[in-house]
Amino acid sequence: MIELHLIGIGTGNPDHLTAQAVAAMNNADLILLPRKGAAKSDLIDLRRGICAAVLTAPVQVAEFDLPARSDDPAYLDAVHDWHDAIAATWCAQIAEHLPDGGRLAMLVWGDPSLYDSTLRIAERLKGAGLDVAVRVVPGITSIQALTAAHAIPLNRLAGSVTITTGRMLRERGWPEGAGTIVVMLDSGGAFEVLEPQGISIWWGAYLGMTHEALEQGALAEAGPRIAARRADLRARHGWIMDVYLMRKEQADGA
Amino acid sequence: MIELHLIGIGTGNPDHLTAQAVAAMNNADLILLPRKGAAKSDLIDLRRGICAAVLTAPVQVAEFDLPARSDDPAYLDAVHDWHDAIAATWCAQIAEHLPDGGRLAMLVWGDPSLYDSTLRIAERLKGAGLDVAVRVVPGITSIQALTAAHAIPLNRLAGSVTITTGRMLRERGWPEGAGTIVVMLDSGGAFEVLEPQGISIWWGAYLGMTHEALEQGALAEAGPRIAARRADLRARHGWIMDVYLMRKEQADGA
Ligand SMILES: C[S@@+](CC[C@H](N)C(=O)[O-])C[C@H]1O[C@@H](n2cnc3c(N)ncnc32)[C@H](O)[C@@H]1O
Ligand SMILES: C[S@@+](CC[C@H](N)C(=O)[O-])C[C@H]1O[C@@H](n2cnc3c(N)ncnc32)[C@H](O)[C@@H]1O
Repeated sequence: MIELHLIGIGTGNPDHLTAQAVAAMNNADLILLPRKGAAKSDLIDLRRGICAAVLTAPVQVAEFDLPARSDDPAYLDAVHDWHDAIAATWCAQIAEHLPDGGRLAMLVWGDPSLYDSTLRIAERLKGAGLDVAVRVVPGITSIQALTAAHAIPLNRLAGSVTITTGRMLRERGWPEGAGTIVVMLDSGGAFEVLEPQGISIWWGAYLGMTHEALEQGALAEAGPRIAARRADLRARHGWIMDVYLMRKEQADGA
Repeated sequence: MIELHLIGIGTGNPDHLTAQAVAAMNNADLILLPRKGAAKSDLIDLRRGICAAVLTAPVQVAEFDLPARSDDPAYLDAVHDWHDAIAATWCAQIAEHLPDGGRLAMLVWGDPSLYDSTLRIAERLKGAGLDVAVRVVPGITSIQALTAAHAIPLNRLAGSVTITTGRMLRERGWPEGAGTIVVMLDSGGAFEVLEPQGISIWWGAYLGMTHEALEQGALAEAGPRIAARRADLRARHGWIMDVYLMRKEQADGA
C-alpha cells in the first residue's frame, strides 16, 4: 500500500510553504524529485533547496529523469502518452525504493489542482495495479502569487473570473461575458489576438523567485512592452514562466 | 506612514499558514482582529488561536467590532456603504493604536484576492488621507481546500475554469462554454436552477475546520442530498460556509 502525498510547494518562494506541507515532507518515507533537463535546472535546484531547508527527519530523497515530451502536434494524444510514460517511471521508482509500500511524497509546483498533471498520473498508478491512496496538500498558486505581487483582487466586486490557457485564448478569444480572465500556460503573447481597447493587464514572470518581473497597464500600451520584456527575459534565463490577469471595462457586471 | 500587511491565513486549518504569513505576523507592530458578532464567534476564536499559536514576538493584538451590514436589497450600494463604515473603523483603530505609523497586519480568510473586501477597504484609507503602503501575503483559498479534500484537479486537461457566485449562477445559469465552474458565496442551493443532466458536483463545507463536510456525485442525485445536509449543518452550528465545483460532460473541450 502506497500513501501518495502530492504536496503543493508554491511557485518558487520557499516561504510560501505551509506548515502542513513541511509536516507532510517530514512524515514521508521517500520524496521523489523529477529532473526536467538542463534548461529547467533552476527548478530541480529549487526543490533540492526546499528539501535541504525543511527536512528535519531522515527522509530518503531520490531523483529521477522525467521522460521527454514529444512535440506531436496532436496535443492531447501526446500529453496522454507522456503521462503514461511518467506513470511507468514512478512505478519503477516505487519498485526500487519502496518495495514494501509506505509514504511517498512528490513536490508539486504551485497547487496540485491547477494545470498540473500529477493527480492524473497518480490515477494511472491505480490502473497499473498498485494499491494507492492519494492525499493532496494545497499550495499557493501562481495566480495568488500574481495578485499578491500586484496587491490586486482577483475578482471584481461580486464578479466572476475565468481561468484559461494561452491556447484557448488564441482559439476562442475573450471568453463570453467574462469581466476578469487569468491566462496561464501561454507560450507568448496570446493577448495579441484581442482588440485591446478597454482591457487592462497585470503580468508577472518568475513570481516568488529572485528574478520576479512585473508589468501592468492598459493592454494597448503594456502589451508590446510585456512581449519585449518576456522575449528578453526568456533569452537571458533560458526559460520563462509567466501568468497574467486581464480586466475588461463595462463587461456586463461580471 | 502605515505599512498594511494583508495576510492570507487559509480557511480554517492553522496548518495552512505559510512561513511568510507567520513571519509577517511576527514582524507587525499591531494585528487587528475583527469581531463579527456572536453567530460567527467561531471565526474570531480561530483567529485568536492562530495568534496564540504563531506569535513568538511581542506583537500588540487589538480586537474591534466590525460594523453591521445592512440588508438593503440594492446589493452593491449597501456593500459600498459597508466598506466605507469599515474603513472608518480601521482609521479609528489606527489613530488609537498606531498614531505614529508602523506595521499593521490584518488576517484575511483564505487568500486576500478572492471574494474579499479587505483590499478595497484598504484603498479607502488612502482616500481618507492616510499614507498607506499595502503588502499582500497569499493564503490557501477555499477552492484549493475543496480540491485538496476531494483530491481532484480544478481544471480538465487543458480546459478553462470559471469561478462565480451563487447570485450570478441564479441570475445567468451555467456560464457559456464553461466545462468546470466553482461556486462561492451561495446562500444555498443555487445549483437548483440548473438542468442537472450531465453535471457532477463536488461540495465542501467548513473546509479545513473540525466539522469539515464533503459530498460528491451526479448533480441529479447529490444536489438534494447536499441541500438537506447543508440545512442540517447550518441549523446545528448556527452558520455555514460552503463552496462547490461542478463539471459538465461534453462541454466543448473547455
Ligand atoms: C503547468 S502550470 C502549473 C501551475 C501551478 N500548479 C500553479 O499552481 O500555479 C505552469 C503555468 O503556471 C504559471 N506559473 C507557474 N509558476 C509561475 C511563476 N513562478 N511565475 C509566473 N507564472 C507561473 C505559468 O502560467 C505557467 O505556464
Ligand atoms: C467572502 S468569501 C471569502 C473567500 C476567501 N477569501 C477564500 O480565499 O476562500 C466567503 C466564501 O468562501 C467560501 N469559503 C470560505 N471558507 C470556507 C470554508 N472553510 N469552507 C467552505 N467554503 C468556504 C464560501 O463559498 C464562502 O461563501
